[in-house]
Amino acid sequence: MEKKLNLLVFSGEYDKVLAALILANGAKDMGMEVTIFFAFWGLLAVREGNVEEHFEKNFFEKTLEMFTPKEAEELPLSYMNMGGMGQGMLKKMMQQSNKPILNDFLEGARKKNIKFYGCKLSQEVMGFKEEELIPELEIIEVNKYLEDALKSDIQLFI
Amino acid sequence: MEKKLNLLVFSGEYDKVLAALILANGAKDMGMEVTIFFAFWGLLAVREGNVEEHFEKNFFEKTLEMFTPKEAEELPLSYMNMGGMGQGMLKKMMQQSNKPILNDFLEGARKKNIKFYGCKLSQEVMGFKEEELIPELEIIEVNKYLEDALKSDIQLFI
Amino acid sequence: MEKKLNLLVFSGEYDKVLAALILANGAKDMGMEVTIFFAFWGLLAVREGNVEEHFEKNFFEKTLEMFTPKEAEELPLSYMNMGGMGQGMLKKMMQQSNKPILNDFLEGARKKNIKFYGCKLSQEVMGFKEEELIPELEIIEVNKYLEDALKSDIQLFI
Repeated sequence: MEKKLNLLVFSGEYDKVLAALILANGAKDMGMEVTIFFAFWGLLAVREGNVEEHFEKNFFEKTLEMFTPKEAEELPLSYMNMGGMGQGMLKKMMQQSNKPILNDFLEGARKKNIKFYGCKLSQEVMGFKEEELIPELEIIEVNKYLEDALKSDIQLFI
Repeated sequence: MEKKLNLLVFSGEYDKVLAALILANGAKDMGMEVTIFFAFWGLLAVREGNVEEHFEKNFFEKTLEMFTPKEAEELPLSYMNMGGMGQGMLKKMMQQSNKPILNDFLEGARKKNIKFYGCKLSQEVMGFKEEELIPELEIIEVNKYLEDALKSDIQLFI
Repeated sequence: MEKKLNLLVFSGEYDKVLAALILANGAKDMGMEVTIFFAFWGLLAVREGNVEEHFEKNFFEKTLEMFTPKEAEELPLSYMNMGGMGQGMLKKMMQQSNKPILNDFLEGARKKNIKFYGCKLSQEVMGFKEEELIPELEIIEVNKYLEDALKSDIQLFI
């Protein structure tokens, strides 16, 4: 029977999303089934960077947009971010040791058919339109996340 | 057989505690058994806001009291808190999309008989008296948490 | 059959590493098998504090060394760190209620043969030499972590 990994990505930080995607890709490569449920700040990691249209947004949604990174590669670090310097440094260190960056792991996960879920409540609160999020992302309610987690052998909150 | 969710709430941040309580309420509504173990900063989410008495506290316990929020609705955000502005904004956004706030989910969890545990070691270190914490909270040692987690189908550290 | 606890310690913060080690020691004392996988900032908790040698490091690795704590007892808090004041206060509060500090739990875990794993990718990116990390730490790839997690009854991401 196929083993299954279920990740709840709550955090919108470069290093934590990176850790999640390394685990997800690694598990998929081992033949496991993998689902990732992006909730709250985790949704910032699956925004479509190149959306041109301008959406109807209220004041708070516009403010949120102003203060949050537009795509995964711009997310801050959870530790030693130091105004973005830490994030830049981490990326340089990853390049120097010939490691893929976050976008590579994200692309890998999308190509390998890792299942991407997004949290409906978070999406509504944050005012993200479905067109602003990557097309692989299926918006679900929390009970569907729980059903999926119950069928999994490993569940992590990241 | 009833499925079981076990959450360890370590964080004292509005958004993380909110995520925990959304999961807890959702699982309970699906017929699952749910326990939440509040440890370290998580205890800040289950303080009784309206306690009038003044307790005997040492210097450090008084300082801690001075710097920490007195109830769940005052907890800071884990991300983009910006001196509390982010927290206020999140609450406004939740209201605008007709979502319950943290206190509503907390009340829901208390009414639905979700089991609340508190970490004895954390409680002693932080100097919280039992009267300062919500009455539903049962103070337990870490081995009791582990026994409960072993009987659960999903365990998350939040 | 022996029950098994698997912790992924991603965070490099005093309170989170402390929580992980309290869980690990508690589980071991109950007769459970315990493995801890230190990844990313978690590696900062298992540096050998008294290493005298000077290692060949590139610019980024030197900068990282300059900005990160050299041993577990120097790690910052995840919450209310306030430039280190919060960390000092937590330690005082732990002493006042006669609790062991982080180093005690770390020593306990090492003596009790709790299995320590370190993440190869993180170690390479951060440029840590094996001699800079505690000797009990076995460096492994992410798939070995996943195999171990699959055999465990509780898995937590800290």
